[in-house]
Amino acid sequence: MSRLGIALLPTNYTTTLPEGSAYDSLCLQITTEHWCERWRDMCIGSDSPKDSGSRAKTEATAERWRASQVYELGELNDTEHLAPENTILLVSPWLELDAPDAWVRHDTVVAFRQELAYASYLSMHTAIVPAPQANNRTQAAAFARALHSALLSFPGLHLAVRVPIYYYPTHDFHQPWQTWDLLRSMCEYHPRLSVALDLSPLPATLPSLIDAWNAEPVSHVVLPASLFISNAKGYPVLSKSTQGVVRNLIVHQPSVTFVLSGTDTNLHSKGGDKAYPQYIQHLHRTTAAKEGSMEYWARGYGDLLQAPLQPLMDNLQNTTYETFEQDPVKYAHYEEAIYRALMDRKERERLVLLVAGAGRGPLVKRALTALGRSKTLNAKVYVVEKNPNAWIGLQRTFKDEDRVQLLFGDMREAAIPEQVDIVISELLGSFGDNELSPECLDGVEKCLKPDGISIPCSYTAHITPLSSARLWQEARDRGGKGEEPYVVMFQSTRRLSPYVHECWEFAHPRLTPLGCDNGHNVRSAETVFNIPYGGILHGFAGYFEAVLYDTIGLSIHPERKDQVSKDMLSWFPMYIPIREPLYLPAGCELHTSIWRLTDGKKVWYEWCAEAFLDVGGSPVFSSVKSFGSSSTLGVPSSPALMTHPPPSPLIDAIEMKSPFDRNSQQFQHIGKLKIGQTGLHNPSGRSSWIGL
Amino acid sequence: MSRLGIALLPTNYTTTLPEGSAYDSLCLQITTEHWCERWRDMCIGSDSPKDSGSRAKTEATAERWRASQVYELGELNDTEHLAPENTILLVSPWLELDAPDAWVRHDTVVAFRQELAYASYLSMHTAIVPAPQANNRTQAAAFARALHSALLSFPGLHLAVRVPIYYYPTHDFHQPWQTWDLLRSMCEYHPRLSVALDLSPLPATLPSLIDAWNAEPVSHVVLPASLFISNAKGYPVLSKSTQGVVRNLIVHQPSVTFVLSGTDTNLHSKGGDKAYPQYIQHLHRTTAAKEGSMEYWARGYGDLLQAPLQPLMDNLQNTTYETFEQDPVKYAHYEEAIYRALMDRKERERLVLLVAGAGRGPLVKRALTALGRSKTLNAKVYVVEKNPNAWIGLQRTFKDEDRVQLLFGDMREAAIPEQVDIVISELLGSFGDNELSPECLDGVEKCLKPDGISIPCSYTAHITPLSSARLWQEARDRGGKGEEPYVVMFQSTRRLSPYVHECWEFAHPRLTPLGCDNGHNVRSAETVFNIPYGGILHGFAGYFEAVLYDTIGLSIHPERKDQVSKDMLSWFPMYIPIREPLYLPAGCELHTSIWRLTDGKKVWYEWCAEAFLDVGGSPVFSSVKSFGSSSTLGVPSSPALMTHPPPSPLIDAIEMKSPFDRNSQQFQHIGKLKIGQTGLHNPSGRSSWIGL
Repeated sequence: MSRLGIALLPTNYTTTLPEGSAYDSLCLQITTEHWCERWRDMCIGSDSPKDSGSRAKTEATAERWRASQVYELGELNDTEHLAPENTILLVSPWLELDAPDAWVRHDTVVAFRQELAYASYLSMHTAIVPAPQANNRTQAAAFARALHSALLSFPGLHLAVRVPIYYYPTHDFHQPWQTWDLLRSMCEYHPRLSVALDLSPLPATLPSLIDAWNAEPVSHVVLPASLFISNAKGYPVLSKSTQGVVRNLIVHQPSVTFVLSGTDTNLHSKGGDKAYPQYIQHLHRTTAAKEGSMEYWARGYGDLLQAPLQPLMDNLQNTTYETFEQDPVKYAHYEEAIYRALMDRKERERLVLLVAGAGRGPLVKRALTALGRSKTLNAKVYVVEKNPNAWIGLQRTFKDEDRVQLLFGDMREAAIPEQVDIVISELLGSFGDNELSPECLDGVEKCLKPDGISIPCSYTAHITPLSSARLWQEARDRGGKGEEPYVVMFQSTRRLSPYVHECWEFAHPRLTPLGCDNGHNVRSAETVFNIPYGGILHGFAGYFEAVLYDTIGLSIHPERKDQVSKDMLSWFPMYIPIREPLYLPAGCELHTSIWRLTDGKKVWYEWCAEAFLDVGGSPVFSSVKSFGSSSTLGVPSSPALMTHPPPSPLIDAIEMKSPFDRNSQQFQHIGKLKIGQTGLHNPSGRSSWIGL
Repeated sequence: MSRLGIALLPTNYTTTLPEGSAYDSLCLQITTEHWCERWRDMCIGSDSPKDSGSRAKTEATAERWRASQVYELGELNDTEHLAPENTILLVSPWLELDAPDAWVRHDTVVAFRQELAYASYLSMHTAIVPAPQANNRTQAAAFARALHSALLSFPGLHLAVRVPIYYYPTHDFHQPWQTWDLLRSMCEYHPRLSVALDLSPLPATLPSLIDAWNAEPVSHVVLPASLFISNAKGYPVLSKSTQGVVRNLIVHQPSVTFVLSGTDTNLHSKGGDKAYPQYIQHLHRTTAAKEGSMEYWARGYGDLLQAPLQPLMDNLQNTTYETFEQDPVKYAHYEEAIYRALMDRKERERLVLLVAGAGRGPLVKRALTALGRSKTLNAKVYVVEKNPNAWIGLQRTFKDEDRVQLLFGDMREAAIPEQVDIVISELLGSFGDNELSPECLDGVEKCLKPDGISIPCSYTAHITPLSSARLWQEARDRGGKGEEPYVVMFQSTRRLSPYVHECWEFAHPRLTPLGCDNGHNVRSAETVFNIPYGGILHGFAGYFEAVLYDTIGLSIHPERKDQVSKDMLSWFPMYIPIREPLYLPAGCELHTSIWRLTDGKKVWYEWCAEAFLDVGGSPVFSSVKSFGSSSTLGVPSSPALMTHPPPSPLIDAIEMKSPFDRNSQQFQHIGKLKIGQTGLHNPSGRSSWIGL
């Protein structure tokens, strides 16, 4: 859901917005045709053949201009009185930064910079740059160079490059994005560079490539009035497919300004020129996220990078507890899981529960409710918490509850007076084990009865390749190697594979003996993603899924969360950035490895990927091999959640190529990189996953 | 030409080298089969089924070992008395860092690190790591991870990974390099990581891919005695193709150690075990560079990165002049060019020469000789030099020569008493204009007669894509963005295209008026290279070619230098590094743009490239478009050098695809990057190309 802006691109030059209109900014070309004429005369040469004398004279004028660029009277509109904060510069549309002739290109860049310099002088913030030429890919790099050096030279200016949604007459949707990708890459993902998407009449069915724009920084959408059709009443509206694109942009862009042109040309019988901006406002309103949904709850959090919590290393704040306790689903599921576990131990005359890491006590309350519901008369609830600040509130909350016994300290060393039937914890992060639930519960299991139950009893980590120019750029600009995972509410993102692959699983209680070096908690996974449409890999989306007990679970897995724990708010997904973006052509395979590592003192992840493209020969079918450590380390697989489809690796299997086929030369390798790692480079501090 | 090392890999464990042998080091496995047995028992489980009790006991031992790795007596050879400086560790060959089973892999890494830790304890510098498995590409990333973390953990150890030159039984030469490329990339081109190339019997004709190893850091070559054949006399020798590979490695690797095994097994009737190292020494001797060749003259300069001279910004040193004056070819060509120019002006009764930037005076001497040869009786030679240190020597050298008049100062401002017939300068760099010859000569032309001659009268810059892991790593480790061009005598390098493309040309005197902003000296070029065999792009090789006068030229163009200026020593080629290595699959196209830029105060280059792969459809043939600025800026093309083949862009043209074909979707884009730029990021100082 984006902040909405609407700009007017007037047919005739004006510096004032129509009275009481819905526009909040004006889009203006400041140069006049006089300037255009002089420039063409100096830099291209007029069509009328000149005598050598006047030719030399013009050449001399041109050289003077190249040395110092000055406009003459009449070459600029009277712009001194513009209100810069709501004016957008429309760079002279006749400037071709990718002109095929090198000398014309050189002079175009000079004129381009002259115009930007003047806009800076007027304190304008935004300039819309004319589109690269459809048929001149060979000079796209020169275009990019000019952009990049302008971004460095004019720190006050944001540059939005016009890009048509497709090229005439071929309806080629691919090339415009391809060209933009080159510009964005060569400008090194500059934060002040964005897209002004030019909409044209769209076919009823759109190519899936249109989604590529969801992952790009689209700041403006140019909508000519001619694109609007008349509805039954004669008012201007947009076609279904255009509406779809517009709504998509509203959903995926944190802030987008619609630039309306030709609204004063009476193309539609009803509504007048006010009708167009009103219609856009209507679309924006009706695209709002549904109440109660994660999107609604998290308005304003879109693409905001947050460092994952490290509750074992840090003590959480009161407001953090407050926020998470508001989740309408999570604790209900916990209560149900506890209830079912209690019913399964009904025969015992006394039941001992342990809430490991109680925070302010929400799980304790649920445990007590569950005891009531299950009519468990004789029960004891031990509660362990290491956060001295939360400890106060805990004591106050349960001071009159004699079934509850509070124990202060780290659950890994806590001395529990007796063996426990059910241990209950909420130590899960967006990626499952990233808040070190496995290490914490290792310490608790010693006090669990042989047939004891852990809630959760298992959890899995999942990844899928992600494209998001904005997230990658933000992560990079956080400094370091830009390789720390972040918790993010995704907005300007695009999935590159329809599949989400499971990496590994942790189950509790463990059946195998604990290692003294935490080596039993290492994991590794290799997965293969088939990339149907291609795009730029900027990292991975990370999700978790947990089985609390029986068929009760928690999930933020995009395909399954609604079946498992609808409307749960507590976890945003994880963004796992990569060091350098990797171009994934359509039809390629992305081979990914990810590791959960430990040296006995800390825990961290490393990940990498390679892209392969089959360049000949028909693909060989076989099932994917997954060496996910969870099975080899002898951890039992969790009770299947009935509501779940089979895990995606199996779904995906049928289209996998065999590793041997991959090894063959026909299977052309097309790119590889050490994608990144967290912790190793900075073994202490937040970035590495706690000191154990 | 590399420093030679020969190591013995004895059949039976010994810590002493045979008396008086040619070996300078010993290659040893320090672990015994007892350790192998215990490790297998702990970490894989013996074949004999055990009762659960002893199984648990073993598991407990294993866990103790995982927590702290200790060898027991008999598990290590008696190695305390080894001389570490000439001992190479052979890591236990049974360790599979890419074992398919994740748990076995985990324990393999633990054992691997244990062995490296012991080698470090013995102060060994080098360890040879067992080869990755041929059929398990899926775990190559895990192998790489283990290597990288070992490199970080053992700063005293150099790791050489065994890589077979091909895999059995398929004779697949591609995959071993492919796997090594993954290891090298994921270890981020670590300077302590190299290849120990395992030679096997080779076919008579080798795939061109074998050259890929020329661009990789090959530190060891493993040669089993069984690889040797008997010559007529019964002495061990290598087959023609194996000799070829060995000589190639000697030429391209700065330092390589040959590891000989099985030399004590009497496989050959004559020569005994001394014969093998002696034969290797013979090969090394007979591969030495020919006297008088650049390679001979530049022994020890291989792959040594040198910052290009900036004579306009800095004053050169006496030794620098000394070195360059020794060139046997360059000044002879200058003299001949001056002579021919004088003969072409013979009819005039007086000739005025100007030596612009005389240094210690070599060109002045040649000019005087040429005046003599051409029997020019009435002549004046003005000499300009800005270097106050060289100035002294100049005065001394020519104090008795009244035809010579010395003028101190910058040639761009020097007041020459009269108009000049011939201006002679030596301002060329490895890339032609990179020492700012164009900017300097702009300043001189004002004193040139309308029909005046400049020697040189034109020069061109040329590039070709280059692969060299070593050069890229060295440039990166110089700090900065590793994007500064360097002057280098290439050694561990591999050309990725058979063609060298011309970028642009400068000609003197200019026919067009000078701009006041130096804009007339900007250049840009876009070229397309077809990449026949594929490899990693690490940057570009840069060359220049100059026309001095008539058909007399200077050239370091690899295909033409011998025709134009054989045995000239003054210029090494230029290495133009890139920011991130780019994988170029076989059959792809590399589209390159390079710019020579100026802001009126300084000059710099920028360059970038994209790789494209045709993924379907037959290639469309058409001629390449080259928008090199030189023509559009109206500089006349230089008199063709009769001895030259046509410039490579034309040669290459027949296999070019048209830009439109490139734009089509079938022409799959597979990678792109801003390759780099010099100057822009650091507008002052050496790295940018001088203050004008």
